[in-house]
Amino acid sequence: MLHERPRLPVGFRCASRNCGLKRQGKDLSLFVSDRDAAAAAVFTRNRFPGAPVLRGRAIVRAGVLRAIVVNSKVSNVGTGARGLEDADRMAVAAGAELGVAPERVLVASTGVIGVPLPIEKIEAGLRGMAAELGDDPLTGAEGMMTTDTYAKAMSIDAGAATITIVAKGAGMIAPNMATMLSYMFTDAELSASELDTLLRDAVRDSFNMLSIDTDTSTSDMCAILANGHAGRADPGVFAGALRALCVAMVEALARDGEGATKLLRVRVRGASGDAGARRVARAVVDSPLVKTMAHGADPNVGRILMAVGKCVDVDFDPVRVHARINGVPVVRDGLHADFDDAAVRAALAGDPVEIEIEIGDGPAGATAYGCDLSEGYITENAAYTSS
Amino acid sequence: MLHERPRLPVGFRCASRNCGLKRQGKDLSLFVSDRDAAAAAVFTRNRFPGAPVLRGRAIVRAGVLRAIVVNSKVSNVGTGARGLEDADRMAVAAGAELGVAPERVLVASTGVIGVPLPIEKIEAGLRGMAAELGDDPLTGAEGMMTTDTYAKAMSIDAGAATITIVAKGAGMIAPNMATMLSYMFTDAELSASELDTLLRDAVRDSFNMLSIDTDTSTSDMCAILANGHAGRADPGVFAGALRALCVAMVEALARDGEGATKLLRVRVRGASGDAGARRVARAVVDSPLVKTMAHGADPNVGRILMAVGKCVDVDFDPVRVHARINGVPVVRDGLHADFDDAAVRAALAGDPVEIEIEIGDGPAGATAYGCDLSEGYITENAAYTSS
Repeated sequence: MLHERPRLPVGFRCASRNCGLKRQGKDLSLFVSDRDAAAAAVFTRNRFPGAPVLRGRAIVRAGVLRAIVVNSKVSNVGTGARGLEDADRMAVAAGAELGVAPERVLVASTGVIGVPLPIEKIEAGLRGMAAELGDDPLTGAEGMMTTDTYAKAMSIDAGAATITIVAKGAGMIAPNMATMLSYMFTDAELSASELDTLLRDAVRDSFNMLSIDTDTSTSDMCAILANGHAGRADPGVFAGALRALCVAMVEALARDGEGATKLLRVRVRGASGDAGARRVARAVVDSPLVKTMAHGADPNVGRILMAVGKCVDVDFDPVRVHARINGVPVVRDGLHADFDDAAVRAALAGDPVEIEIEIGDGPAGATAYGCDLSEGYITENAAYTSS
Repeated sequence: MLHERPRLPVGFRCASRNCGLKRQGKDLSLFVSDRDAAAAAVFTRNRFPGAPVLRGRAIVRAGVLRAIVVNSKVSNVGTGARGLEDADRMAVAAGAELGVAPERVLVASTGVIGVPLPIEKIEAGLRGMAAELGDDPLTGAEGMMTTDTYAKAMSIDAGAATITIVAKGAGMIAPNMATMLSYMFTDAELSASELDTLLRDAVRDSFNMLSIDTDTSTSDMCAILANGHAGRADPGVFAGALRALCVAMVEALARDGEGATKLLRVRVRGASGDAGARRVARAVVDSPLVKTMAHGADPNVGRILMAVGKCVDVDFDPVRVHARINGVPVVRDGLHADFDDAAVRAALAGDPVEIEIEIGDGPAGATAYGCDLSEGYITENAAYTSS
């Protein structure tokens, strides 16, 4: 059960500020544990990872973190040697403010690609932030936002422990072995290698099945810190809570995708294997024609056949395929069902729009998360650097 | 050299009519050769092909065609056994009108998926069309249009022969071993097996590198008919002309994509293999963030790094990657080039926007064709069946 109001687990605190990167709004966030926390993280597979991703991969190998510092507006990607120096300076400045070693500080930057990081502003901005630390995770989530319309944080119980997630999303989201910026904090006691396994399992069916626009960010990362204050966690209980928390956040990110007006959920069942199930679910959730149909609530449901059918590398028998939209049958035996136009229109007008697809070929399933495609996505992205 | 005004080659004629499928505008086209023509065709690989595709695959095996009949508005996809019967009836009706055997008639339908074909209207519409046949290919192109804003036909010389193409495009276009509806006619003398090879070679680097919206139609087909009136063709000369004609039509289709305001051309060079070059070119031309950048002429060029970098399955060294937009360098040595903002803005405001990407890893190259992404795409597709 998600908490009604998120809060950071015992021993974690955060703060955020405007340090002058954005004209207004928070642009710098700090998260800290009062003692060393076991840590694991996954990062984008984009071949042009940002400096914070390169540094983060090295830092997280030790399996111990104390703090995370994040700026928004500028992503420190495509910035070469200077970018790596800037990422280090950011860790040194945050470490100095908090009294922790820089190698225990994970750094992240999100925003425009290819612009040098205004590191002096960040260094100046970090000074004095330790005095402002509090336990509301939404404060930390605020400084990470780019095109998100609201700050996102959620908490859930895992036995005696709490897990809290903060994340930013909105666009350039088609995670590949990782996700946008997403940080999880828990007072459970778990080892770094346990965390690593738990994180990868949870991310696989949540963040890695989220697609706003098929574009994979150069800055994606998802990290988890466990400081042990609540004692030893039962890994099974923890895994269930972690997965539920990640799926809840993924649905929030999808619904708040750039220009999105609703959540799309595509559940595929009956595939012969995992890879095929995931492929079909992603193809349908990514199809611009399915996304615009959901946006306009116009019952052009043959587009579902089209989107399933374009997975030419997945083996299935078309005549065994069935599909429903929010419970209303639209495809039967691989044919366009003789459906009730008004019922389909009503189903498409709902939020979420859940599309169920039965492949009829085996035991594997997958669920993908996305959003509709509206004029707002274009408007936001046709003039992003200028706005 | 493309002709200034397209015309059908010797022995080919066409006509089009409104038979009542659309409220206004032509919705039925007929193309005919005055004698048996050698023929080849490629079809969509979508797993839910329409009845005309299923029938076409069987018909074209004989390598001889006399006529093509096409309707727009309704695609005869997802319609099962009745759809196949309707496709046959359409061939019988066209054959009766023209005095040719139904098995020499290729049938095509384009439009909404999953709606039964109003076959009686088509049968009635075909009656008397033989008397209206003429040599302007634009007349035939008109009856095939769905969301195209204008009818498309082009002619080119191939030695003493002429090749003429008519096509319709606009949306649901990400061909996979085939294309939207595209028909080519030539008076050159070539065998069906020569045509098959020539067609596949030409389609590979033209129609199969075109993507409007990543969605692969269930109705795609591309056919060529050669009636021999102009005598034996030199296959090398013919291949060059055919390829130039296909690329010219692909650029016209891209520029007239749903909501498009300009052509995007992505040239990749220096890849280690063909598959990788094609993958990168398609990833960049398909990226919604690159497409919206081209639409808004906003110099957020880091998105090119992102789009190349998301090809995680292509092997290359990121530090050897260079990119230019209409000649203006934007990526050097895998880093964001220190570019002239005004120059990039001007380059992005051009039409076409040509993005050149040098991978620095080998001899292979590929060019992909697409268009920008505008609010118009959303508006057209959020209410397609209803409009």
